[in-house]
Amino acid sequence: MSHRPSGRAFDQLRVIRLETGFSRHAEGSCLAKFGDTHVLCTASVEERVPPFLRNTGKGWVTAEYGMLPRSTHTRTDREAAKGKQSGRTHEIQRLIGRSLRAVTDLTAMGEMQIKLDCDVLQADGGTRTASITGAWVALHLAFQKLVEAGKLSAVPLIDQVAAISCGIYEGQAVLDLDYPEDSSAQADANFVLTGTGGIVEVQGTAEERPFSRDQFTQLLELAEKGVTELALLQKKAVGLA
Amino acid sequence: MSHRPSGRAFDQLRVIRLETGFSRHAEGSCLAKFGDTHVLCTASVEERVPPFLRNTGKGWVTAEYGMLPRSTHTRTDREAAKGKQSGRTHEIQRLIGRSLRAVTDLTAMGEMQIKLDCDVLQADGGTRTASITGAWVALHLAFQKLVEAGKLSAVPLIDQVAAISCGIYEGQAVLDLDYPEDSSAQADANFVLTGTGGIVEVQGTAEERPFSRDQFTQLLELAEKGVTELALLQKKAVGLA
Amino acid sequence: MSHRPSGRAFDQLRVIRLETGFSRHAEGSCLAKFGDTHVLCTASVEERVPPFLRNTGKGWVTAEYGMLPRSTHTRTDREAAKGKQSGRTHEIQRLIGRSLRAVTDLTAMGEMQIKLDCDVLQADGGTRTASITGAWVALHLAFQKLVEAGKLSAVPLIDQVAAISCGIYEGQAVLDLDYPEDSSAQADANFVLTGTGGIVEVQGTAEERPFSRDQFTQLLELAEKGVTELALLQKKAVGLA
Amino acid sequence: MSHRPSGRAFDQLRVIRLETGFSRHAEGSCLAKFGDTHVLCTASVEERVPPFLRNTGKGWVTAEYGMLPRSTHTRTDREAAKGKQSGRTHEIQRLIGRSLRAVTDLTAMGEMQIKLDCDVLQADGGTRTASITGAWVALHLAFQKLVEAGKLSAVPLIDQVAAISCGIYEGQAVLDLDYPEDSSAQADANFVLTGTGGIVEVQGTAEERPFSRDQFTQLLELAEKGVTELALLQKKAVGLA
Amino acid sequence: MSHRPSGRAFDQLRVIRLETGFSRHAEGSCLAKFGDTHVLCTASVEERVPPFLRNTGKGWVTAEYGMLPRSTHTRTDREAAKGKQSGRTHEIQRLIGRSLRAVTDLTAMGEMQIKLDCDVLQADGGTRTASITGAWVALHLAFQKLVEAGKLSAVPLIDQVAAISCGIYEGQAVLDLDYPEDSSAQADANFVLTGTGGIVEVQGTAEERPFSRDQFTQLLELAEKGVTELALLQKKAVGLA
Amino acid sequence: MSHRPSGRAFDQLRVIRLETGFSRHAEGSCLAKFGDTHVLCTASVEERVPPFLRNTGKGWVTAEYGMLPRSTHTRTDREAAKGKQSGRTHEIQRLIGRSLRAVTDLTAMGEMQIKLDCDVLQADGGTRTASITGAWVALHLAFQKLVEAGKLSAVPLIDQVAAISCGIYEGQAVLDLDYPEDSSAQADANFVLTGTGGIVEVQGTAEERPFSRDQFTQLLELAEKGVTELALLQKKAVGLA
Repeated sequence: MSHRPSGRAFDQLRVIRLETGFSRHAEGSCLAKFGDTHVLCTASVEERVPPFLRNTGKGWVTAEYGMLPRSTHTRTDREAAKGKQSGRTHEIQRLIGRSLRAVTDLTAMGEMQIKLDCDVLQADGGTRTASITGAWVALHLAFQKLVEAGKLSAVPLIDQVAAISCGIYEGQAVLDLDYPEDSSAQADANFVLTGTGGIVEVQGTAEERPFSRDQFTQLLELAEKGVTELALLQKKAVGLA
Repeated sequence: MSHRPSGRAFDQLRVIRLETGFSRHAEGSCLAKFGDTHVLCTASVEERVPPFLRNTGKGWVTAEYGMLPRSTHTRTDREAAKGKQSGRTHEIQRLIGRSLRAVTDLTAMGEMQIKLDCDVLQADGGTRTASITGAWVALHLAFQKLVEAGKLSAVPLIDQVAAISCGIYEGQAVLDLDYPEDSSAQADANFVLTGTGGIVEVQGTAEERPFSRDQFTQLLELAEKGVTELALLQKKAVGLA
Repeated sequence: MSHRPSGRAFDQLRVIRLETGFSRHAEGSCLAKFGDTHVLCTASVEERVPPFLRNTGKGWVTAEYGMLPRSTHTRTDREAAKGKQSGRTHEIQRLIGRSLRAVTDLTAMGEMQIKLDCDVLQADGGTRTASITGAWVALHLAFQKLVEAGKLSAVPLIDQVAAISCGIYEGQAVLDLDYPEDSSAQADANFVLTGTGGIVEVQGTAEERPFSRDQFTQLLELAEKGVTELALLQKKAVGLA
Repeated sequence: MSHRPSGRAFDQLRVIRLETGFSRHAEGSCLAKFGDTHVLCTASVEERVPPFLRNTGKGWVTAEYGMLPRSTHTRTDREAAKGKQSGRTHEIQRLIGRSLRAVTDLTAMGEMQIKLDCDVLQADGGTRTASITGAWVALHLAFQKLVEAGKLSAVPLIDQVAAISCGIYEGQAVLDLDYPEDSSAQADANFVLTGTGGIVEVQGTAEERPFSRDQFTQLLELAEKGVTELALLQKKAVGLA
Repeated sequence: MSHRPSGRAFDQLRVIRLETGFSRHAEGSCLAKFGDTHVLCTASVEERVPPFLRNTGKGWVTAEYGMLPRSTHTRTDREAAKGKQSGRTHEIQRLIGRSLRAVTDLTAMGEMQIKLDCDVLQADGGTRTASITGAWVALHLAFQKLVEAGKLSAVPLIDQVAAISCGIYEGQAVLDLDYPEDSSAQADANFVLTGTGGIVEVQGTAEERPFSRDQFTQLLELAEKGVTELALLQKKAVGLA
Repeated sequence: MSHRPSGRAFDQLRVIRLETGFSRHAEGSCLAKFGDTHVLCTASVEERVPPFLRNTGKGWVTAEYGMLPRSTHTRTDREAAKGKQSGRTHEIQRLIGRSLRAVTDLTAMGEMQIKLDCDVLQADGGTRTASITGAWVALHLAFQKLVEAGKLSAVPLIDQVAAISCGIYEGQAVLDLDYPEDSSAQADANFVLTGTGGIVEVQGTAEERPFSRDQFTQLLELAEKGVTELALLQKKAVGLA
């Protein structure tokens, strides 16, 4: 019997929707919904690569992240108005970029750049994991468009990548924390895994007191289960399943 | 017979939708759609007023404006990443704030502040007019909520306010410019009018060459027609019609 | 009988002086005095154009605006010390630039840029209209110098441009608001008009409550009268009358 | 037989020195040397806590991180001159702060703040793990000083905390990466562990391709061995062993 | 026979004018003209002192410095637009503030602050010395106004302070460098001296090669002569002579 | 009999150490210790010169200065975190750069740049004079390395340069102020002199009240004595004595 605020089983994801085509202008887009967390992910293809890649024939995939001021329970100050992005924003957008590059064949994509913008329209916990999961879909769609336009011969993605958070909530390891769980969890970990089970990123944090190695193993196993489900939804979203 | 790219008549608005309840957390919200221009307007109630109003018993209404990087045809740099808001952003958010305050009874609302965030999810011309029109709806809904909660005895709005752009396109005065029209118009004017026909703001700009007083009068008359239609849609959105 | 604080008639400008040659180094300069409002306008010719115009053969005219900290009744913080320009500054300098470009033949001037700096030495209302009016003089003088130096065959200005504010003060439409009027006017409008009567920019704002279309027409007619007078003074200042 | 550039065994730390008393003014200081990586950690006691803790009776521990411009192999631009801290700096200083707070009894320390400055004098890989390990020493020394001064009855540290990096280098899991290893590792993980074996933070990143769960387990076990050694050195540094 | 570009004798000042009353709003103002160098100095009285002086009964005098973009021979970027003040600006405004405080009785003036804004309208060398000389006049006038208003019993200035530059130009020590001399001088020194001959600040800089102690003594003696003349002009400007 | 807090004679330097080789990566480095003031000076050779020197065949020497947050008695905010360098920092780093360039043959060094980073690890007065004195050593070592590598035929330094502060402390002129003296001195002067006795920079400041010309001469003579001693230590540090 579940004691989670949402009534979910300890190993149950929220209702997940990966809606494509939300944005009319972007080369690829996905509105990733993890329950009440809604993140709009758009992929923009640019001809220019960063300076360190010029004339190398290799491409680049990078990401930016933002939250609408009233995506949160109480309003958060607009970063553009404050004149700088928070440390948290920097952390998340670097994580998204690394995660996508880990499954992209940068040589095969050639000298171009794709920027993934992950903007949180509504937040209820897990915005970074929804961002990564949705960004992979948007990226895949943008690559498909380049293939259709004859600019690439195949989609240069080696694998899928998706992410999920797990945590220790009231002493129990649970999958896919929502905001009420996240704000009172003893530990919180984000896992970025590939479709074939490889680990791309692990970020585990004890909120107040340290956790044990056994607990950490439980979190990892829940994540593996969750990402398997997410990977199937991604395939459907891009027309591969 | 229309020569507008969209096939609309010279005095015809785009399809307008004012969808309420898009945002779960905000005290009031409206997704204002003027054709392919989509602006999410949220109202956030705050207890604190700006310093110049402290202990005066009066309230304040203010606005912020932003565009998602890929709301535009080609990606626009993120203002938070650049570390500052553009002059255009400043202009628009000041305009939205002034427009709303012109129909708000700041004394009746008492010492609180309402912040309207107008974030462009997708842009196709007329983002500032959609912002003002949608922001009034979000503001009204937030006031209704305060009335329902017993914190206000009545909605402290004296009138409605809505906005529309008009312009000279291929020598002809037309209503509600979309992006293809806006980018090649000879003149462009934004009108902020009240439900009862008063003028709150007029901003007319000759794009390349000056325009005449007669042309300006035509633009104003089109705007009056357009705002009459918008005002009716606003009333429906907030349950007054 | 006038009830204006200054004793002026409702349709009377302040004493206007457009003094040329104030600045020894600038290619053109004009100290524009609208009563106690004094704005120093200088024109600087630069060989480089903005990136979007490189190799197009076209030139550019742009403007910057600033206020000395103690140009105002009480001291205003220095924008350079605060590290950013206000929204108001951005609005005004964009307006000045657009106004001048509307009467400049950018193709005829060739690939160069002229920057107009409008710095308020003393403020008493109407600094943006004095800036535009004086900047046109400084720009014309700079072009004359380029003609004299054989770098241009003729002054590439199609028309004159000047600006004036009007407002509803104690229920009456009046011309050329000074600070005491400006700070208590019910409505305030700035008109940028050409020497031949065309409209370049109109910016009307209801300060507290909306105004009517008839009132707006009165303001426009006052502005037409005022700009006719300013245009004559501009001609004298540049030696055309 | 080792194939590591330094000739170390796969499970061998660099020569570690935790030198106290480097800084004359700080309440606690430790120059943490992990081989050629030298980080100066100072603890500064401040009476003021952040706003969200005022009048709660609880204290706060926070950290800042910086690198001297020529601590690195080639010179790095000075963050103070660039006007902002990088995303990497933000990530590291947030990590240091969280790690220390996980072993501090914030209630017992009372309403004061201790700031740990971790400044890299020389970098050769592992600056964040040296920072955390040295910062705990500096923090302990500052608390001891407060106990000696009678301001605290006991050092409010529940446990030790130390950190070490591990990675997959040429297919082999190794402990305590130096710069040559770090720059060509297939995977890189930082572990923040307590003296009693609890996990505070785990951050694992696949550099180019994902790694497996077995590999991750090997890294964790190496880290446990390394932190056990570091914890003993910390005890000696603060006079507890 | 002089070999100075201006034809001046080696120990001759430029034509100096200290024009009071240039600014209508400031509590004291002086347009200091050292030949073609024109600096507008305004004094603004503020009730608030900096935090470190609150409730001490002591006052403060501080200064800010700026140059209009086209005060210089070729246009200089506007510091407000660049978003920061240059190192040179910081140096000069700190120098002006220290110089004035050295002759002010901060205790006698009581808990208030006077800000001196020194804005260069036109530059031809020696802007910092003109600023100090003119700022003293503006400060004195502001104090006189406070005496007249009964807020101070006497002007709390212990002495006069004025400044002049000297340099080695073509091997010869000369007084009051103008721009052509300044840009090719072997050495350049600014002296801030009191009316009674005391030294407040000395800043001597070898431009390319070091200078000798004898040369330095010559520069100091020229400065003493120059400041004696400036001090007399200051007295006249404030009505003391 | 000395009345200085440290017990030093009025013309006695603190214990000076110029330790080379502190930094493993820099082309030249010197930890300059003036008593408890410790400044790490590193020289970094860069191929690129500033824009104004490109293709001139001339080189450039420049400097940056910083203080570790807890180098001071009480913690100073980190400039990187505040987002800007203080006026004091700007002043000092410009002074260091000018001082070194005054003894460098920029033509002989060829088109390259050397950046001197002077970072204060511990402060007890006189950080700018220690910076200049140590930076010359680091610069010399970097040049020697370039000579050894065959990139320069000789060290392009014309002379030595070193710096020392002097002041009026309790009415007496004293050499090399430490922090307790500096914070209560009536006057404070920094002298930058060459090994052969030339003056490069003089900066004298009256702290509260002006000082006399005789006093200034005493300070200069003390500085000449001090720099003679420093110059000998510099020679030893670089192996010339």
